[in-house]
Amino acid sequence: MIYLDNAATTKPNERAMARAENFITERYFNPSAKYREGYALQGELKSARSSLLSAVADATAFECVFTSCGTESDNQAIFSFARRGNAITTAGEHSAVSACFAELKQRGVECRIAPLQKDGRVDVEKLLSLVDEKTSFVSVMHVNNETGAINDINGIAKRIKAKNPRVIVHSDGVQAYGKIPFKLAKEVDLYSVSAHKLGGLKGVGALIKRKSLVLPPYIYGGGQERGLRSGTENVFGSMSFAYAAEEKFATLRQDYERIKGYREAFWSALNPEHFDRISAEEGSPYILTLSAKGLRGEIVLHMAEDKGLLIGTGSACSSNAKTRYNKVVLAMGYSEQVADGAIRISFSADTTAEEVEAAAAILTDVVNELRTRMNVKE
Amino acid sequence: MIYLDNAATTKPNERAMARAENFITERYFNPSAKYREGYALQGELKSARSSLLSAVADATAFECVFTSCGTESDNQAIFSFARRGNAITTAGEHSAVSACFAELKQRGVECRIAPLQKDGRVDVEKLLSLVDEKTSFVSVMHVNNETGAINDINGIAKRIKAKNPRVIVHSDGVQAYGKIPFKLAKEVDLYSVSAHKLGGLKGVGALIKRKSLVLPPYIYGGGQERGLRSGTENVFGSMSFAYAAEEKFATLRQDYERIKGYREAFWSALNPEHFDRISAEEGSPYILTLSAKGLRGEIVLHMAEDKGLLIGTGSACSSNAKTRYNKVVLAMGYSEQVADGAIRISFSADTTAEEVEAAAAILTDVVNELRTRMNVKE
Repeated sequence: MIYLDNAATTKPNERAMARAENFITERYFNPSAKYREGYALQGELKSARSSLLSAVADATAFECVFTSCGTESDNQAIFSFARRGNAITTAGEHSAVSACFAELKQRGVECRIAPLQKDGRVDVEKLLSLVDEKTSFVSVMHVNNETGAINDINGIAKRIKAKNPRVIVHSDGVQAYGKIPFKLAKEVDLYSVSAHKLGGLKGVGALIKRKSLVLPPYIYGGGQERGLRSGTENVFGSMSFAYAAEEKFATLRQDYERIKGYREAFWSALNPEHFDRISAEEGSPYILTLSAKGLRGEIVLHMAEDKGLLIGTGSACSSNAKTRYNKVVLAMGYSEQVADGAIRISFSADTTAEEVEAAAAILTDVVNELRTRMNVKE
Repeated sequence: MIYLDNAATTKPNERAMARAENFITERYFNPSAKYREGYALQGELKSARSSLLSAVADATAFECVFTSCGTESDNQAIFSFARRGNAITTAGEHSAVSACFAELKQRGVECRIAPLQKDGRVDVEKLLSLVDEKTSFVSVMHVNNETGAINDINGIAKRIKAKNPRVIVHSDGVQAYGKIPFKLAKEVDLYSVSAHKLGGLKGVGALIKRKSLVLPPYIYGGGQERGLRSGTENVFGSMSFAYAAEEKFATLRQDYERIKGYREAFWSALNPEHFDRISAEEGSPYILTLSAKGLRGEIVLHMAEDKGLLIGTGSACSSNAKTRYNKVVLAMGYSEQVADGAIRISFSADTTAEEVEAAAAILTDVVNELRTRMNVKE
């Protein structure tokens, strides 16, 4: 089975798991315990936070708080700061952000949604036009999970702060972290990351925050994570996250270029008359979203599965959504028909050239077979 | 090293970890994925929820929602329902509950705290006298994490509902679940449990809820856990939790009796003139809290560690608390001196008779040595 649904989740990194295993088998203590092993685990967690942080940010200006997932990080950021005035986000956000904004609206906060451009990035001028004196909070995702489109969040944050320096700027960096070269500018106040998108485990995330920002806890209790996130620390999860991230960052630039080559090789191997390409070339190389002309993405997905290829049709995190269409593709201005044909091929740094070649062949077969069966002419 | 700090956290169950390992190595898919393995994982999670639930509740009346920890479960319960009127809890709660009540107070909710009896249980008559027409929420922990005192939460819930049927009743069951024989009465609306207290992993918990209770999400996003807790499901953590719990429940009654014997054997092996016994005989057998007369618990802990015994001085989850005293022991009416001498010995179902005997000998040595060194006469 060829797994090209790495934007949904990745296979946990075997080396990182093996390296962290002793936190299950031997060093299973509670990090708040007053004996030496408790303190030693606090030291390990501190190193893990520092390693995860320094990969993307200046450790003198930012700090890292472990959470239970990217979604929790987003919730903490949004519900902490989008309380008054108006709050702004984009039409391309993951449901971890958009569902929070829907809830904010219920709570009486004025929510403003900036539209996307055809390339999947937020329309920056329109976003900025929504920022005013009463704006308390803006959330703009870094890399879009459906398309790979990359927003220039540093540049956007700078322009937002120039217009209203009191705005708190947040970005969901779940699909960017460990995948695209990047350093956080000081104008970005909060940045959400997740372990399971880069070889870590599900159930682990972090919220990177500007040190001088006073962040309220979202989960209250024993005061772990310097009071910012209570609950006994997930030591195994946090340590294996740091180990997996370390590997990803060590070869990030080489992987980026190689995977970019794979993405283009994959695209070149397909018949361009049978697909609309949704993902722009400048986007994250790890995500290639296409629309199979005249077909339904879900049918393509199922037949590909039968032939040994696992791909997605869009965010695996919104399978319970009521709409059948990929909302991000629609927000880019595509028709319902194009959105309905959307499939997402997503690579990881462990994807091989052989897998890419074989996957393109399977997808070609599937689409040819379905087009014939359904008598698609376009 | 003899580990008798199992109320802080337990060693993960090797069999449960081995059984769940394939959810890391092979079945690492996103349970929201639309291919077969995604649906299959949903099925596995459903079985896990059902197994965890049926051990303590009627599955036709209750359901189980996975969360990231007992603390998150408590937060979701409290912040969902303690919004108006007054909210009541006890003076013995874990910080996962008491810190939420402190926050509720900040938010303008009237918080009422029921006192403890000398045996560590809540004073039920005083608790009931606090319930009135305006009470929206009551939280009473099941087994006290500091002392093992067991509150009759079913009986308490029934009496609360008889007085005001609109009150939502919650209980933190983290130290009870998988340890004491118990079935939830329908009058208990919400019950928090945690994986790492019974051989599961840190970073996994669940909130058991009455099915007909409309629970708002606390973490919003992709709609996982039937919309009640978003974020990609922690499959490995949840499955290993269910496997570990299965084992605990299979031998719960035998373990209960055996550990009760160990607790009394441990107590009998000590010189009763050197200790005040804080934990009542009717409490959970898994926790024995003592106060070393004339000594500081923390000094006892450190010397015990040097001799190969790991114990606690109270909740490992409140190491950041500003007070030096064990607040629960104080709330039971003991002096500051007694609270200062508190040590907590906590067993697991895997504790052996040999460990108990050796641990009592170490503690005796430590206390004799310290009493001589510090010239304690009492």
